[in-house]
Amino acid sequence: MADDILDTLEAVIRDRRSGDPAASYVAKLTAKGRAKIAQKLGEEAVEAAIAAVQDDRAGLTGEAADLIFHLLVLLADMDLSLDDVRAELARREGVSGIDEKAGRAD
Amino acid sequence: MADDILDTLEAVIRDRRSGDPAASYVAKLTAKGRAKIAQKLGEEAVEAAIAAVQDDRAGLTGEAADLIFHLLVLLADMDLSLDDVRAELARREGVSGIDEKAGRAD
Amino acid sequence: MADDILDTLEAVIRDRRSGDPAASYVAKLTAKGRAKIAQKLGEEAVEAAIAAVQDDRAGLTGEAADLIFHLLVLLADMDLSLDDVRAELARREGVSGIDEKAGRAD
Amino acid sequence: MADDILDTLEAVIRDRRSGDPAASYVAKLTAKGRAKIAQKLGEEAVEAAIAAVQDDRAGLTGEAADLIFHLLVLLADMDLSLDDVRAELARREGVSGIDEKAGRAD
Repeated sequence: MADDILDTLEAVIRDRRSGDPAASYVAKLTAKGRAKIAQKLGEEAVEAAIAAVQDDRAGLTGEAADLIFHLLVLLADMDLSLDDVRAELARREGVSGIDEKAGRAD
Repeated sequence: MADDILDTLEAVIRDRRSGDPAASYVAKLTAKGRAKIAQKLGEEAVEAAIAAVQDDRAGLTGEAADLIFHLLVLLADMDLSLDDVRAELARREGVSGIDEKAGRAD
Repeated sequence: MADDILDTLEAVIRDRRSGDPAASYVAKLTAKGRAKIAQKLGEEAVEAAIAAVQDDRAGLTGEAADLIFHLLVLLADMDLSLDDVRAELARREGVSGIDEKAGRAD
Repeated sequence: MADDILDTLEAVIRDRRSGDPAASYVAKLTAKGRAKIAQKLGEEAVEAAIAAVQDDRAGLTGEAADLIFHLLVLLADMDLSLDDVRAELARREGVSGIDEKAGRAD
């Protein structure tokens, strides 16, 4: 897993959190507080949704990258990691099948 | 990378897309159309943002799992993959450093 | 202003908040707590945004109605009113012109 | 209704749409296209949701004002008006009671 860019990115983000806000976007955003990070996550998801509805593949690729980036920043701010999310996804698979939402109302 | 639950999940999602909507959430959601998938992505991000602001670590873990799940469903619906997003993240790292957003206006 | 459906709706919502959750959507949603109301507001905005991008006028009309409805429920839950929001909009007009955002960075 | 700030604001927005993007936020945002307006609506709703969860009354008042402002800009871009939304809300009241969502699944 060490070669996964997602984990590399997560490590970089964790390293930059306490850096100079003038030199690092991660440090700047983190300094603004969790509500601002959470807001950015919501914004990127809205942008991704709009790109998808517009059938803009390049746009969605970029917005999905932004979304994952900000999700990692938010997880780090909560002292959570991508592996915690992976464990949750694996747990769901183990308990009831990875398509565990089948049958949910919506 | 074959062992990454994210890639396993993506493979399952791609397999289920054309399945029976009565038996699979992925098939049911896909049958509703891209706008509905995009809407779900936005909803999960809002839920993740709220969980974070409430300092709910277990809640954020679950919402982050939901968010990634629906992002994978949306990417599949656009014939994009998580690897496309990984490539975009790697490209940004290569071009200008992984913290490439430093200095952006917002 | 008493004839404005928005104010009528707000009065109904305030009246229903403490009602029977089994008989009233407002009572049921309110009983679920503020985070759930806030989540619904975010969801309706995402749906409105998607309807607009799809050029779905009837859809946007319905989603805009849902959005305003849930905004009023949320305002009521914060002991705020539509008139508080009107006052804020009027204040902005008085201070710097109603198009006061001109020149903002984003 | 002519005295309602919401209608005054709507009239100003309609007037500014075709103005100079360098002088008017409405003109600038409109020139960016509907997807950008829709995106802003989603963003403001996320900000409003977060302010509410943080129990920030002044914050919610400001975000609710921003939300309504951008909803009016989006409606205008679709050649819809606040009165169209009022009519939809009134129609719901007439058909099934203004709390018409009672009993809905979510």
